[in-house]
Order: sequence, then structure tokens, then C-alpha cells
Amino acid sequence: MAKSVTRVSKKSGLSPGTLVHVGEKKEDMVRITVIDYNEAGVEERRLERVEDSFAYRDKDTVTWLNVDGLHQVEVIEKIGAHYGLHPLVMEDILNTRQRPKIDEHEGYVVIILRMLTYVEKTKHIDDEQVSLVLGSNFVLSFQESEGDIFDPVRERIRNGKGRIRRMGADYLAYTLLDAVVDEYFPIMERLGDRMEVLEQELISDPTVTTLHEIYNLKRDLIALRKSVWPLREVTDRLERRESPLIKPDTAVFLRDVYDHTVQVIDTVEVHRELVSGMLDTYLSSLSNRMNEVMKVLTIIATIFIPLSFVAGLYGMNFVNMPELQNPWGYFMALGIMVALALTMVAFFRRKGWL
Amino acid sequence: MAKSVTRVSKKSGLSPGTLVHVGEKKEDMVRITVIDYNEAGVEERRLERVEDSFAYRDKDTVTWLNVDGLHQVEVIEKIGAHYGLHPLVMEDILNTRQRPKIDEHEGYVVIILRMLTYVEKTKHIDDEQVSLVLGSNFVLSFQESEGDIFDPVRERIRNGKGRIRRMGADYLAYTLLDAVVDEYFPIMERLGDRMEVLEQELISDPTVTTLHEIYNLKRDLIALRKSVWPLREVTDRLERRESPLIKPDTAVFLRDVYDHTVQVIDTVEVHRELVSGMLDTYLSSLSNRMNEVMKVLTIIATIFIPLSFVAGLYGMNFVNMPELQNPWGYFMALGIMVALALTMVAFFRRKGWL
Amino acid sequence: MAKSVTRVSKKSGLSPGTLVHVGEKKEDMVRITVIDYNEAGVEERRLERVEDSFAYRDKDTVTWLNVDGLHQVEVIEKIGAHYGLHPLVMEDILNTRQRPKIDEHEGYVVIILRMLTYVEKTKHIDDEQVSLVLGSNFVLSFQESEGDIFDPVRERIRNGKGRIRRMGADYLAYTLLDAVVDEYFPIMERLGDRMEVLEQELISDPTVTTLHEIYNLKRDLIALRKSVWPLREVTDRLERRESPLIKPDTAVFLRDVYDHTVQVIDTVEVHRELVSGMLDTYLSSLSNRMNEVMKVLTIIATIFIPLSFVAGLYGMNFVNMPELQNPWGYFMALGIMVALALTMVAFFRRKGWL
Amino acid sequence: MAKSVTRVSKKSGLSPGTLVHVGEKKEDMVRITVIDYNEAGVEERRLERVEDSFAYRDKDTVTWLNVDGLHQVEVIEKIGAHYGLHPLVMEDILNTRQRPKIDEHEGYVVIILRMLTYVEKTKHIDDEQVSLVLGSNFVLSFQESEGDIFDPVRERIRNGKGRIRRMGADYLAYTLLDAVVDEYFPIMERLGDRMEVLEQELISDPTVTTLHEIYNLKRDLIALRKSVWPLREVTDRLERRESPLIKPDTAVFLRDVYDHTVQVIDTVEVHRELVSGMLDTYLSSLSNRMNEVMKVLTIIATIFIPLSFVAGLYGMNFVNMPELQNPWGYFMALGIMVALALTMVAFFRRKGWL
Amino acid sequence: MAKSVTRVSKKSGLSPGTLVHVGEKKEDMVRITVIDYNEAGVEERRLERVEDSFAYRDKDTVTWLNVDGLHQVEVIEKIGAHYGLHPLVMEDILNTRQRPKIDEHEGYVVIILRMLTYVEKTKHIDDEQVSLVLGSNFVLSFQESEGDIFDPVRERIRNGKGRIRRMGADYLAYTLLDAVVDEYFPIMERLGDRMEVLEQELISDPTVTTLHEIYNLKRDLIALRKSVWPLREVTDRLERRESPLIKPDTAVFLRDVYDHTVQVIDTVEVHRELVSGMLDTYLSSLSNRMNEVMKVLTIIATIFIPLSFVAGLYGMNFVNMPELQNPWGYFMALGIMVALALTMVAFFRRKGWL
Repeated sequence: MAKSVTRVSKKSGLSPGTLVHVGEKKEDMVRITVIDYNEAGVEERRLERVEDSFAYRDKDTVTWLNVDGLHQVEVIEKIGAHYGLHPLVMEDILNTRQRPKIDEHEGYVVIILRMLTYVEKTKHIDDEQVSLVLGSNFVLSFQESEGDIFDPVRERIRNGKGRIRRMGADYLAYTLLDAVVDEYFPIMERLGDRMEVLEQELISDPTVTTLHEIYNLKRDLIALRKSVWPLREVTDRLERRESPLIKPDTAVFLRDVYDHTVQVIDTVEVHRELVSGMLDTYLSSLSNRMNEVMKVLTIIATIFIPLSFVAGLYGMNFVNMPELQNPWGYFMALGIMVALALTMVAFFRRKGWL
Repeated sequence: MAKSVTRVSKKSGLSPGTLVHVGEKKEDMVRITVIDYNEAGVEERRLERVEDSFAYRDKDTVTWLNVDGLHQVEVIEKIGAHYGLHPLVMEDILNTRQRPKIDEHEGYVVIILRMLTYVEKTKHIDDEQVSLVLGSNFVLSFQESEGDIFDPVRERIRNGKGRIRRMGADYLAYTLLDAVVDEYFPIMERLGDRMEVLEQELISDPTVTTLHEIYNLKRDLIALRKSVWPLREVTDRLERRESPLIKPDTAVFLRDVYDHTVQVIDTVEVHRELVSGMLDTYLSSLSNRMNEVMKVLTIIATIFIPLSFVAGLYGMNFVNMPELQNPWGYFMALGIMVALALTMVAFFRRKGWL
Repeated sequence: MAKSVTRVSKKSGLSPGTLVHVGEKKEDMVRITVIDYNEAGVEERRLERVEDSFAYRDKDTVTWLNVDGLHQVEVIEKIGAHYGLHPLVMEDILNTRQRPKIDEHEGYVVIILRMLTYVEKTKHIDDEQVSLVLGSNFVLSFQESEGDIFDPVRERIRNGKGRIRRMGADYLAYTLLDAVVDEYFPIMERLGDRMEVLEQELISDPTVTTLHEIYNLKRDLIALRKSVWPLREVTDRLERRESPLIKPDTAVFLRDVYDHTVQVIDTVEVHRELVSGMLDTYLSSLSNRMNEVMKVLTIIATIFIPLSFVAGLYGMNFVNMPELQNPWGYFMALGIMVALALTMVAFFRRKGWL
Repeated sequence: MAKSVTRVSKKSGLSPGTLVHVGEKKEDMVRITVIDYNEAGVEERRLERVEDSFAYRDKDTVTWLNVDGLHQVEVIEKIGAHYGLHPLVMEDILNTRQRPKIDEHEGYVVIILRMLTYVEKTKHIDDEQVSLVLGSNFVLSFQESEGDIFDPVRERIRNGKGRIRRMGADYLAYTLLDAVVDEYFPIMERLGDRMEVLEQELISDPTVTTLHEIYNLKRDLIALRKSVWPLREVTDRLERRESPLIKPDTAVFLRDVYDHTVQVIDTVEVHRELVSGMLDTYLSSLSNRMNEVMKVLTIIATIFIPLSFVAGLYGMNFVNMPELQNPWGYFMALGIMVALALTMVAFFRRKGWL
Repeated sequence: MAKSVTRVSKKSGLSPGTLVHVGEKKEDMVRITVIDYNEAGVEERRLERVEDSFAYRDKDTVTWLNVDGLHQVEVIEKIGAHYGLHPLVMEDILNTRQRPKIDEHEGYVVIILRMLTYVEKTKHIDDEQVSLVLGSNFVLSFQESEGDIFDPVRERIRNGKGRIRRMGADYLAYTLLDAVVDEYFPIMERLGDRMEVLEQELISDPTVTTLHEIYNLKRDLIALRKSVWPLREVTDRLERRESPLIKPDTAVFLRDVYDHTVQVIDTVEVHRELVSGMLDTYLSSLSNRMNEVMKVLTIIATIFIPLSFVAGLYGMNFVNMPELQNPWGYFMALGIMVALALTMVAFFRRKGWL
């Protein structure tokens, strides 16, 4: 994620509102689907040409136009022109490095979100932009790539269960927002699992890998935080119903999304604090281990160095060394050595090192 | 507690208001009790069927319906339908991973709390959700499992001492809230005790266990903080009497609960700072001990290594080594050694290592 | 002080307003004194029975009722009943673990303060609760034990110097508050002295005791902060004259107390930062010292180990070792040793270790 | 950048509004260019004398007067006098150590910005002041040295593409502000690249250079932050259209600049946290490596010191040492040595050090 | 500066408004000067008796009364009485340990400032209180000792350059305030220089002195911050023209002082962060150096200890040691030693330690 934080310089120097897609380029076609519904029925189509969607705009029904893939700038341009979006809004949709935000315009509200997915293989959090445009009777949604997080919403519209078919475009926008936020919880769980593994390692056997894991976790949490914090303001402003497009019935649901966002933020903060505690603990563990290593060296060296000296002493070749001639000399020397060794052991006992 | 922070993903993808109990599953029946009272008298019953409670709703008296256990979703559903609770409120009650909050609805107020209990055996803080619904003449309370913290409240209602029988449902809600918050103090005491033990260990003999204890304490405090901080806003909003359900007479009592909450938060923050001071102290202690170990090694090695060298010198087998033939050679060598050793000792004295 | 942060659980489970003295129990009698004055004169009495004070209430004069000792709950109860205090107020007065606060009630204002005294013997900060109740023409003050910090105030009332006799009960309350806050400055001085001693130790000779002193200082500052921070809000609210009991003439004096409180808080924060700097410095000092120890060991070992090897080499007993027969062999060996030693010394010189 | 934070003392003691250029002195001439345009056409000139620009002031068209170089105080003085700028404004323009700010005056708005450029050669961030004065139909811009960041703006005015020619002076000011802020993104990228290199080094082979690199990065980020944070307030206040000089059409563009600023701030904060995590990781890496070094020493020493002792023992010259006479003595001694060595190896295996 | 933070206890227990000079006592006379001016002319006098100044009060001109030295309490008392200052104001002027503040009173405004001077000799920041009292047509200024920072202001009044003679007392107060704040910049420069020296030392050769220097710098910055932060509020409140004594013309200048104050605060914060980064870097440098020391020891010991063992082995005196009799034994032993040494060197090469 570290990489993603800075790559928007491709645009620097261009006139504002110049549409350039900032993000990964892809070759395949943009996929456009439209779902048009009211309490009575549902119509669902995959469109070949973006112009086919324009007819829905003036109908009474709620229209949800979903675009997967942003690399065909002309598609976005046509939609923007048809729905009267401000050039800067289209720029925000295409430049997929935005922080979450909400912008109110004459007749529509733009919500920029970050959709996170945990990629099991790389143990990495993938981070993609989802842009929602809420009008009086339509919702436009733009994703960088095809995803399935909106599938349950489609299902609910199709079979008409729950209140979704009875309510308006604002409720649909809420549902999509809710789907994005709900995806954060499994990611928190994964991070929680990684943290438990690390805590276990910290206690049993911390290695350099543990250190790099902790650092990576920290990095992920910092990036996550950057995505989640601004979301709080987004949901809060939506819930306070500043825009006439949000009806009172929907506000109570937005309050719920707000609560979820705060819960995610709380968890991120708790994880961040735990990770910082882990780093301290890791450093202390290392010192502890060093202490142990040093003690072993000190004990062995301190016991044998004096003994070796005594042995060296009586290995000297002076002609006149009375002890050497003494028949009990050797055994006395051994006795001195044992006494020395025992003294040292007693000393270490008293120090609590043995 | 680390575990509990993230497990709500079971619900992700469902329609809002879909009732699923998120939490531990249990087999035994849900226990429902009702206490109905006014200044004149008390009626207390344990109900077999939830429908038996519905008659109390329209009476003038104050009704307290307490539900222990949330695993029978249909029970909650019936109560919710009868008392006209919003689907999202029922979802919050069942999804027991909420952070403390207060939500005002048409005709009732919902208060979500975290009840903490210290489990002596595992030295662990157990964390359970308590939901209160306050209406004009009723209080609904939902607990995850049977607990006895509301027993003193029941007792007070039964024998009619104090002002509880004279006052309305808002006072009852206050009493329950107060009972939950009062439970935090013995937990703070336990943590305080653990901290004192750790401080003692830090001074006398810090080990790896001390380190892990400090980390665990830190983790507990982080989790605790997450439960207690939002409570401040809950009690503050209750006390500022934003809802017409809270009468002025009760507000002064809510101010008291607010004060208690702030006191708990203060204590948590103080503990957190102390724990972080402990970690620093621990690390410094380790360095101190390492210093001591190194000094012992250095003193012994530095005294004996030169002596051993002298001994080795006169252990050489050259044919022409004049000193060896000298009858006083041995004693001169011993003299040199003693002089060397004394020099070293003097050096360490001057350094302050001995 | 760590101990004091949590001991209020004795009360948990009781009905609110149940009067229990939470704090140290004492055997001796509660001491009650009354000073009644106006510009014309002063009457001062020590009361045997609390009821003797009740007559003063309805006089025009300013009455100051001071109670030293809170262990006779019935005394407080009687005073509370007579002056119409709310049960929760009496509870706050008796439960001496309150954080500083101000509560406005119908007809009187309650101010809870923490009085700090530095106990020279234990180098400990003692922390006691002082509660003031300000009414239109009376001030009640409650202390846990007899203290002499109010004596200068008494003296000023007696000899009628200054403006105290000319002004009302609000000015008396200010004077008492000022007396409590003024006591914080000598404590700050003591802490400042301890810090200077520690800074000196840090530079000259840091030991484990220094570490524990730093930790204790940190702990004292954390506890101090907890007592002083809320005081800021108390004095601020008093000064903003939210209560009609505070007259404009007194407000300017309260502003002065507010300034003093802010000054104390500033000093506490400065001390806290310095203490945290000390911990870092301490740790660095240890590392520095370890470096020095290690250098000594390394220099000695690195010089003598190769020399000892050479000596050992010519101590071998092979029959065919040409050097041994050489009459200059010994001196050549000595020469090699000197050369080796000089090389090592030169090496350490270049490294800057010698 | 550390240097730049403090050098404004040259002015201390002078009367306010005394014009002195605080910054690097240069010898070459100040370069003044004027671009005058409306929807119909553009006139662009390089001026020899500043007085040549004065005629444009009273025309209907939008006039952009750009000054590169501030060392000719009299030039600024003449412009200031002609456009009626307050002496303190001219002082701010010349004293190029200002923090970003916005000042509203009667009839014009002054915007002070910091323009950052990454100097590839020194791996340093260069920091220069850009001052904008926005009037009803003119924009004055002042740069310390000639730069090319405004060239794309000039190009857009010349060829009349986009909306710039159709809109007023406020839009021109926005465009210049946008050009400055857009320059921050490539700098963020460079820092991001340096961080990735450092993270790589941290994992593979951290050296002292890594440490100094981290510290330099930290220093750059601290300085960067100082330049960027106040910009947030500047753009926010501009966008909230407090000045009548900003028209509603331009406000939405200013909102965009605000969003960019917040994005830059976010990135700086993320980088700062990562850098602080790097320092911790670095320290832990060192401890890890020390552990490894110590283990090698301990293993070798602990295995061979006892063996050497045994060898020394049988190198003693006592006349009566029974083992020496034993024909199998040597081999028994060797056996003992092998056994000792194996014991040690087994011990280290169990410890997990081998 | 650490010392200065706490010494106000001398006053504790006294009645409020009792005038005692808290600060260093001095023997020499208080110096009183008066400058009285309007656009037409200036009168400047040094007064022997304070009463001589009283006549100026009722003139139309602007009167600036400057008092150097506060140890003659009666002088301050007389001035206070004549100008109608509140007793607490006089107390604040005399008690020179105040934090910067602004107090508005009926008819005058009191501004307390801290004037800092860098004492080159002790490398210490000296900290003195300057009190300004601004009335409708007078400014009183009180300094602890004679200083020359107001000399440029006097000069400007004398020769009537600039706008000072044309404007009122509020502009004079601004000028004095500006003079005090301008003095902060050279101090910031000195600190910046010290920091650069330290950064250089950190890279080239960090010693214990470096550590103590860093700590001292940290301490200075903490004290500085305490003096500068409240100044922000002072200048902000002045600039927002809450008092009728500040005229609109002067407000724009006060805005300039506010900007300078914020700039100083920014610099202090930047320095603080850099210093904390230095401490971390220092600690890491130590660890780095320790690593280097340990490597030298380990390499030498690990190469020679096994060699010494081999030498010791063949120094044993067993009668039956076949190798000893072998005429090539010695050379084989040497060969083994060389092989061992080369192996070790190869091992360290692979580890990257050589």
C-alpha cells in the first residue's frame, strides 16, 4: 500500500478537469450494467454502449448504473455529460487515488470510498476506489475492476425482499456504502489473526522475521487508517442529512453505517497501539536473550579463566619451583582449582545467575 | 479481549435489520423476568412465554422486563414487535460487539453498554453487552448471560427502600446504568493490584514473565479503554437531558454516573501511562543487569588474561631462557603477577566498578 | 498515590445517596469550628455538638463552618439536612476519592478539591479531599484530617486586615480555594529539587536507584496531573460567573486562581516532559557505559590473546622444534610478542578507543 | 532545510514595514513579465521598467504581473505603491521566510505559499516563497528566482484552451495556487522512493548510513510538514469564500486544491509514522545482530575454554602426576576433551543457538 | 531555566494583592524614564522620584513610563495607585514568574510577556518578565533589569521617522510587544546553530557530552515552549480587537506580531521533534558502535582461542604422545593452526564482518 500513497504526479501541470485515468491500465472492455426498479418490478441489463442507459434517466423508477473499469475515459465522459456532472467530479472518479470524501453539488451528491480486499496469497490489503453519485432517482457507481461485493445487493433487488424495492435512490446509495464498509470487518479479523500469531511468536521465539512482520503490520495499519478515518466524516455528514437528497427514513440506516465506521476506526486504533506495544516488547525480548547469552559466557569464562591460570602457573619451566617437587603438589593444585571453581559457582548462585 | 474486537464479519453481506445473534451460542433457554411496580406495590414474575409480558405495557406502573440470553432470536423479535423497536435497534441488541452508544428514537431511548467482569481464574477481563431500552413507563434490559449485578436493584425495588419506587422508568434505567458502571471500580482495583505486583517485580527481579505480564496489562487497558471512553459520551448526553424521557429529578443522578465514568477513564489513562513507564523501566533494568554481567566478565578476564600470559611465557621451552635458570626466577615471576593483578584491581577501583 | 486511584469499590452495589465514608478510618472525634463575621466583628467557636452551628444560618453575617474529619457520618448527615444539601452531594463529600469538580445546585455551589501536602519523611505526596459548599451567606468546608493550611485565612478574618471582612461568602470561598492552590507551589518546588538532583546523578553516576527514582517521579507527576487538570475547569467555570452566587468583585480574584492553576499545570507538563527525557538519557547513559566496559575487555583480550597463543606455541613439547634450540629464539619470540602488542595498540589508537 | 527555519533575525529591531529583502542575495536583474488577457485576446510582454506595467491596472482585462527575483527592493516598492499594498504586505513578500498564510485587505487578498522543488543532485528539497496578490482584475505573483512551474499556465492562457480565458482574476490565482500544490506530488513520490530503498536496506543490511538516511528523511518530513500544514488553512479559507473577490464558480475549484492539500498532508503524516517505525526497527535490527555476534563468541569460547583448561592441566610440571605416566593418559585426556565439547554442543543445541 | 519554573512559593499563604517582589533581589536603584510625545514633539526625562511622572497622565500626548527594576515595591505601589491599577495587577507585575497573559480591566489592558536573551557565556537562555499596561493615552512598561531592547523604539520616537509619532498609545504598546517578540528570532538562530553542531557530532563522533548537550537542548526547548505558547493567545486576543483601546489601524500590525509568534512556535516545535529524533539516533549510534567493538573482540577471540587450544594440547606432558615424537609433528601442528585460522577468517568473511 505504501506505493499507492503518492502516485498522482502523472497529472501535475494539466488544466483542472482534464480527464486522465490515474491508476492501473487494463486492456479489457469496461463493463456497464443497469438495474432499474420500483416496487412493482425490476429490469436488469448489461449494456454494450453507454448511450443505451440514457433513456432510464427520465423514468420514475430508481436507476442504478454500475461501471466496472475506468480505463475507457470516453465512457465516463459520456455519462458525466449526460448526468450533468462537474468536470472536477469526473476527474475525481478517474483519478483513483482520492481519499474518501463527500461532495455536494447542485442536484447530486458524490461519495468517494476506498474498498479494501484482503489478498490471501500476498497477505496484502488491496485498496480500490469506489465512487458513488447519488441523484434524485439514480445512483451511479464506478469501480476500478469487477468485484462481487455488490452482488448481494443485486440479489436483494431482484427478489424484492427487505425494504430496498420500496425505498428510493438514497436507500440504494446507503446499501452500496454499507456493502463497502461491511467488507472492512473480515479484513480486521485477518489483521487480528496475524496479530495473535505475532503475539504468540513474541512469547515463544521472536526472530528477525517477527520484527519484519510487526513492521509490515504497522505499515498496513497506517495505510488502513488513512482510508478509514475520512470515512467517518463522510458517513457523519450523510447522516446529518445536509443534503435534501437524503430522506429521513434513510438517515437512521446511515447512522448505523456511521456506527460501523467508528467501530472499524476503534479497532484500527487498538491494533495500532498493540503493534507499538509489540515493538517495545520485541526489543525487550532481545535484550533479555542477550542477557542470557552473556550470562552463559560469563559463567564459563569466569570459572575456567582462573583455573587455567593456575594450570599455566605450574606449567612454567623455572628450575626452582618448590611446589613442583612436592609429591602432593599436583593434588594440592587440583584442590586449589576445585576450591576456586566452587567459590565462583557460589558467587553466581548468590547473584541468582545459576 | 483481543479476540473480541473483530468478530462481526459473520453478518457481512446481509440486509440491514436481518436478525442474527453475533456472539457465543448457548443451548439453555432464555430467562425472562418481569418486575412491575409503583409506590404502592411490586409484582415480580418469571415468564415462560414472552407474550405473557405484553399485558404490562399499557399499565400505569413501571415495568422492567429483563432478558438473560440472546440466542433465541425469535424472543427478541417478538418483544421488538410489541414495543415497536426499529429493526436496526434489534440488530444492535443481538449483535453483541457494539461499542457503548445511545440512540434516541421516537418514543424510546436505546443505551448499549459493556459490562465487565474480572474472571479470577484466568486473570482475564470478561466483556459482555448490556442493552437498555427506556420508554415512558418501561425499561427493557438484555444481557448475554445470567448475571447477578442487577440483584441489588431488584432487592431495592422489593423492599421499597430509597426513592426507586417513587420515581419513574428513567430512574430505573439510571439505576441499571449505575450498577454496570459501579462494576468497573473493582476491576480497576484488580488492575491496580496487578500493577503494584509488577512494580515490585520490576524493582526486585524483572524476568521475561514480567515483560509478558506488562504487555498483557497493556492489552487489557487498551481494550478497557475502548469500552469506557464511549460511555462518557453516553452518560453526558443522557445527563444533558436531550430526550424528554429523562426527567429533571433524574438528571442530577445521571451527572453522578457521568462523574464516575470520568473517574474510571482517568484511572485507565493513569494506568496506561504507568504501564508505558514500566516498559521503559524494564528495558533500562535489563541494560543495567547486562552492564553488571559484563563488568564481572571484564574484571575477571582482564585480571587473569595478562597473568596467564606471563605464566605461558615462562612455560615456553626455549633452551636459552636466562630467567628460568635464576633460582629466584619463579618468585620474581609470581611478584610480577601480583603486581599486575593489583594494578588491574586499582584500575577498576578508580573506574568505580569494584 | 497509585493506591488511591481505585479504592471506591467499597460502595459498589449500594443505593445512590447511601452515606458511607470511603477513606481511612480514624478514631478521634470530628472537630467542628465556626467563624461568623461581618465588617463589624468576628465570633469564633469550637463546637461540641453540630447542632450548635444551626443558629448561624439565618443571620446576616458570613458563616464559615469547618469540619475536620469525615468518619462520623451522622455529623455530615445533620449538616446536610440542615443546609438542604442533595444526598449525592453528601455522598461526594464523604467519598473522598472524587476528582476535583464543581456542581451547581439550587441555592448553593459545591466545589471538590484535592489538597496536596509533601511528606518530607517518605518523600511522598499526600493527597486529601477538601469539599467546599458555598451558599449565599455561608461556606461549609470539609477536610479529611486537621490541617493548618486554612490558619492564615482565619488569622486574616480575625484581625480584619485586607478586604476579607468587607466582602461576602463568595470571597471567603475564593480565599479557601486560593489557600489550597497556593499549597501546590511548594510541592512543585520539591519536585523541581528532586529533578535537579536526578539530573545531576544522570550526568555524574546513574545507578539503578536513579532509575527507580525517575520512575517514582514519573508516577508522582501522573498522579499530580490527575488532581490538577480538572481544577482548571473548576476555576474557569467559577470565574466565568455562571452562578449568581459569585459576585463580579470576586470574579477578578478567581481569574487569579485560574492563572495559578494554569501555571501549576504548565509546570507539571514541563516536568513530565523532562522526566521522559531523563528516561531516554538514562538508557543512553547505560549504553554508553556498557560501551566503555566492552572496550576495556576488548582491548585487554585482543592484546593478550595473540600473545598467549605465541607463548603457548613455544610451550609445545615436539621433539623437533628448530626455534627452541636457537639461542636467540627466546628473544626473537619476545620480539614478536612486543611487535604484536604494538600493532594492536596502534589499531586501537586509530579506532579512537585509546 | 534546518537552516532556513530561523534566519529572519537580520530584521530584528527595525521599524515594521521597513523593506529589507531577507533571503539569498543575487546579482542579476529582476525579471518582470506581464500577461494581459480576456476572452478576446492576449497580450504578453517582458518589461524593462516596472512602470510600464502600471497602465494595465485600469483596463477591463485580467492582468497578471509576475516578478522573478526579490533582491531589487525598489521594484517591489514601486509596485506596492501603485497597487496600494500595505507596507506590512510588502514586508511579507520580501521577507521570504514566511509560513503559508492568507491575509485579506481592503480590495485585495495576499496569499503566501512555499514552493518546493526536489534537487536531484543533493537529494535535497529546495524551498522558496511564492507570494500572490489577488485584486479585482489583477494578480501579482512574486518568486525568489526564475522557475518554470507557471509555464503551463502561460501556455493555457496563450492558446485559450480550457476555461481560463473566460474566467476572472480569481480563477487565475487559483490556477497559480494549483500549480504550486501540484508540484508537491512528485516530491512525495521521491520521498516515497527513498523510503522504499530504506525499507529494503533495513531488511537486507542496515548500516550506519541507513541510520543517517532515516534521520535525514525525518528532518525533511518535519520541514515539509511545516510548509504544508498551514496551507490547509489557506485553501480552506479561500474556499469558504470569505472574500468577495472569490466568485462562486471558482470556489468549487478551490475545494479541489483543498482536497489535494489534505492528500499531501495525509501522505506526509503517513511517511512520518513509517519513518518513526523504521527507527524502532533499525534499533531492533542492531540488537538482533549484536545477539548473533555474541552467540558466535559465546559458543566458541564456551567450547574451547574448558578444553584449554584440561590441556593446561596436563601441561603442569609436577613431578608426581600419575596420569602422565599412564601410557593411555593422553588418549584418555583427548576423550575427556571430546566429551566436554560434545556436551557443550548439545547444550547449545537445546538452547536453540546452533 | 528549570529552576525558574517553580519559585513562587515565597508568597504562599499571603493575602491576595499583598505586594512582594518574587524574583532576584538587587541593590541598585530602580530606573524610571518617561517619554512623552505627539506628532509635534518629544519630551524625554529620567525621573528621580516617581511622583514626577504623575503630571503627564492628564495631558493629551502619549506618555510612556518605563521602569527598570522591580525591587523597590513602593515605587510600583505609587504608580499603581496613581493609575488606578487593581492590586492583583500590581502583584502580577512584581511576581515575575507569570506566564504570558493578557488581562483586560476597566480602562486599561495588562500584557505580561517573557523577554528572552541568549547569554553567550553560559550558553544559556535568560528569561525575564516584561509587563505592559496600556491605557487610553499612556503605556507603562516594567522590566526586571535594564535592557537595551527598547532602545530602537526610543530612537524612532526621538527622530520621528515612521508612523510611531502619528499614532496612539496602542501603537506604542504594539511596538514594544514587537520588540520583545523580535528578540526571539536570534535565540532561535542560536538554538539552530547548536542543533547543527550536534547533528554533525552525531554523525562523526557521538560522546557522552553529545548526550548531555542533547538533553540540555531539550530542556531549553521545553522551557522556551512554555514561554512562547501562551504568547500566541495573547497576540491573537489583542489582534481580534476585543478591547476598545486597540484601534483598527493598529490591528493589522498586531496581526503581524501574531504571525511572528506562530513562526517562533513552529520553529520551537520543529526543533523539539528534531531533538527527539537526535536522541533516538544517538541511541542507535551507540548500539552500532557496540556492535563494532563486539565484532573485533569476537573475531580475535574466535580465531585465537582454538589455536591456543591446539598449542596447549601439544604442551601436555604425557609420556606417551605419539605426535610429539614425529619429526614433522611440529609442522603438522602449525599446518592445522593455519587451516583453523583460515577457516575462521572465511567464516567471518561470509558473515560480512570482515
